[in-house]
Amino acid sequence: MEKRGIGKIALLLSLGDGDIESLQKYYENKNYIIYRGQAGSMDSKKIIAAIETAASREDIIRENYHEEHALYHAIIEALSGYCRGQVLLGEVLRSAGLTFTIVRGTLVEDEPSSGNWIAVVLYGQIGSPRRGFEHEAIGMGIQPI
Amino acid sequence: MEKRGIGKIALLLSLGDGDIESLQKYYENKNYIIYRGQAGSMDSKKIIAAIETAASREDIIRENYHEEHALYHAIIEALSGYCRGQVLLGEVLRSAGLTFTIVRGTLVEDEPSSGNWIAVVLYGQIGSPRRGFEHEAIGMGIQPI
Amino acid sequence: MEKRGIGKIALLLSLGDGDIESLQKYYENKNYIIYRGQAGSMDSKKIIAAIETAASREDIIRENYHEEHALYHAIIEALSGYCRGQVLLGEVLRSAGLTFTIVRGTLVEDEPSSGNWIAVVLYGQIGSPRRGFEHEAIGMGIQPI
Amino acid sequence: MEKRGIGKIALLLSLGDGDIESLQKYYENKNYIIYRGQAGSMDSKKIIAAIETAASREDIIRENYHEEHALYHAIIEALSGYCRGQVLLGEVLRSAGLTFTIVRGTLVEDEPSSGNWIAVVLYGQIGSPRRGFEHEAIGMGIQPI
Amino acid sequence: MEKRGIGKIALLLSLGDGDIESLQKYYENKNYIIYRGQAGSMDSKKIIAAIETAASREDIIRENYHEEHALYHAIIEALSGYCRGQVLLGEVLRSAGLTFTIVRGTLVEDEPSSGNWIAVVLYGQIGSPRRGFEHEAIGMGIQPI
Amino acid sequence: MEKRGIGKIALLLSLGDGDIESLQKYYENKNYIIYRGQAGSMDSKKIIAAIETAASREDIIRENYHEEHALYHAIIEALSGYCRGQVLLGEVLRSAGLTFTIVRGTLVEDEPSSGNWIAVVLYGQIGSPRRGFEHEAIGMGIQPI
Repeated sequence: MEKRGIGKIALLLSLGDGDIESLQKYYENKNYIIYRGQAGSMDSKKIIAAIETAASREDIIRENYHEEHALYHAIIEALSGYCRGQVLLGEVLRSAGLTFTIVRGTLVEDEPSSGNWIAVVLYGQIGSPRRGFEHEAIGMGIQPI
Repeated sequence: MEKRGIGKIALLLSLGDGDIESLQKYYENKNYIIYRGQAGSMDSKKIIAAIETAASREDIIRENYHEEHALYHAIIEALSGYCRGQVLLGEVLRSAGLTFTIVRGTLVEDEPSSGNWIAVVLYGQIGSPRRGFEHEAIGMGIQPI
Repeated sequence: MEKRGIGKIALLLSLGDGDIESLQKYYENKNYIIYRGQAGSMDSKKIIAAIETAASREDIIRENYHEEHALYHAIIEALSGYCRGQVLLGEVLRSAGLTFTIVRGTLVEDEPSSGNWIAVVLYGQIGSPRRGFEHEAIGMGIQPI
Repeated sequence: MEKRGIGKIALLLSLGDGDIESLQKYYENKNYIIYRGQAGSMDSKKIIAAIETAASREDIIRENYHEEHALYHAIIEALSGYCRGQVLLGEVLRSAGLTFTIVRGTLVEDEPSSGNWIAVVLYGQIGSPRRGFEHEAIGMGIQPI
Repeated sequence: MEKRGIGKIALLLSLGDGDIESLQKYYENKNYIIYRGQAGSMDSKKIIAAIETAASREDIIRENYHEEHALYHAIIEALSGYCRGQVLLGEVLRSAGLTFTIVRGTLVEDEPSSGNWIAVVLYGQIGSPRRGFEHEAIGMGIQPI
Repeated sequence: MEKRGIGKIALLLSLGDGDIESLQKYYENKNYIIYRGQAGSMDSKKIIAAIETAASREDIIRENYHEEHALYHAIIEALSGYCRGQVLLGEVLRSAGLTFTIVRGTLVEDEPSSGNWIAVVLYGQIGSPRRGFEHEAIGMGIQPI
């Protein structure tokens, strides 16, 4: 099997399809730190805060600005991809309900020389605040840490 | 098993992980039209052209402006997510090498009332034109058709 | 006389110059659905909501996601043109007072083969919240429906 | 009749609907300087250059940086509205064929105290380089001069 | 010594390094109008309002739309540079604490023919609302007035 | 004297005002790595390439993707600030002639615990390709490394 990149690991976990628990275990045994959570809001800063809080609480990043900066930029890139351009939700009358996945480890599995990186994937629904008037969206940000 | 959305179908196919051929067959039997191809360039318009050409050649869209417009907007949204903001590659000295996946069918599997949509997913590498100086990226656009 | 496009029809109605009632009648007799309303706010989502509400109430779009999606994207494109870039009003301390025009019908008059489209035009004033410190702006979005 | 703003004057002239020559004369007699031209390209800088060249040749702006700056920003704002976001044409595989209208005069007709402004309106078609696969677009920029 | 541009004058004053009072005096004697103030917020419109209020109160601009428009655009360009792209603070969970400097005068010192311009420089910190989790940022906008 | 941040160090060096050589020496003795160069083009990728080449040649970054990624993002942020929004030069018929300054060291002088960062500052002229029709611009990007 081809070696997976940190992005593909985070994406497979985000899609939550198939035996996710085994997949997560498999990569935790390879020293990846992994967390999956949920967030939903018309307020983009609440989604950002939910991810930052989870990352701190789960010790995915250490309490220094260097690492917080890497996480923040990965989140903003993921959100920018999710929104496909301007990072706006409620301001343009739309809402997001999503699963976020944070993965920290080497850029490519089994390649320690590829260095430590952090990947954030957002996968879920985006649309008007009315149920059923929404479609799927995805976004991913990857930063060195 | 939960019903999958057209986005998840396109994403799973894009990641090319596991038994993709079976998955593609499975959804083709459910009347989804699916195509996977590859494109790589520093020139964003070449990537767009490769996807448009494939969609026409494979009869995923009919030769009318209505459908071409839906495809075009799905591509641009996917590219915007892939680039995380400004749709620029060579202009900012970066290059993309990616798999594109086009899926046409109902927004949610086995829900004819959800209507016909087209999803475009781009998954691959983005980075400097030097090999190894790149990381993964993803983008998805979904439009009614 | 040259056949008008759906955009020009919406633009002429927006400018509200000359005999608008006759013009609207003329195109309603050609099966265009037309609505003109007003909205003003520093809050972009209120402007979007006003247009969406009018479109539903006036039966310009049917209650399904397919059509709502087309309308939404037409509104956002119009607002993006009106704002000339980032879709921000109050966040950058400016306000908009505008007439919105929604037109649904064929892309080109008397050409049924051009398909059904929806055009949204915003025309009015943009500027600081102080009266007289504002100038005109326009934006138009056109989507297949 | 309500006093028209410089934007509405430029918009009516752009749409080229009705007796444009009379309208242009009417406003030239009120000391507005007006020019209408055509440009078409996949290359945004060629469209910008065509407008700048016309403005200089027709003495709409004087040869100083102050006025050139005002014109340039009005063009970029108009182009941004026309493109509805990112000022990109060929880079995202689309083309524009348009009429540009430049109007210089008071912000509101018959109100000398409203000061001198310049308005640029772009109205035409945008779409794929294939004929018939395009729809209308509009953009307007207004700057003090 | 090389003649300084209005931008460099504003930048040197913003950095607040060395004998700022003398520098300010020196340029005030050359007929530059200068003001330095402070603003801090997660709310971008409060920063804009603080600068506009200061400019009016200190008579840097006259009470007409022409000049207010020039100031506003200079502020937005400065803020756009400070934010490096989208003009968003709290919406993306970040905060700014900054010194703003407004300078009005000729584009180049001792060159009256270069005309009157206004420069706005923002220099300070940007980052998460937590102390110490922030780094420096700068932005400058220059407009004819 | 207040401790300077890496941004202010890079900004003061960029402005090239006063005794720059002494300032550079002073910070080199404090273990900052500093380089100043020049670039001018209508082609944004040439400016990016000039900075990347200088950084490699002068050993400011090591030859690994981790560090190259940090440098690249610092450059793009600086360029985004310089352009005040979209990172476009020739595409919108404008040109840049600038001094770039790269500084690597602690985020705050004499505070080793603030970690290693890289700052890129661009300062120069932006405008139409005609001499004298240009004004100053600045942009800065700061990234952990």
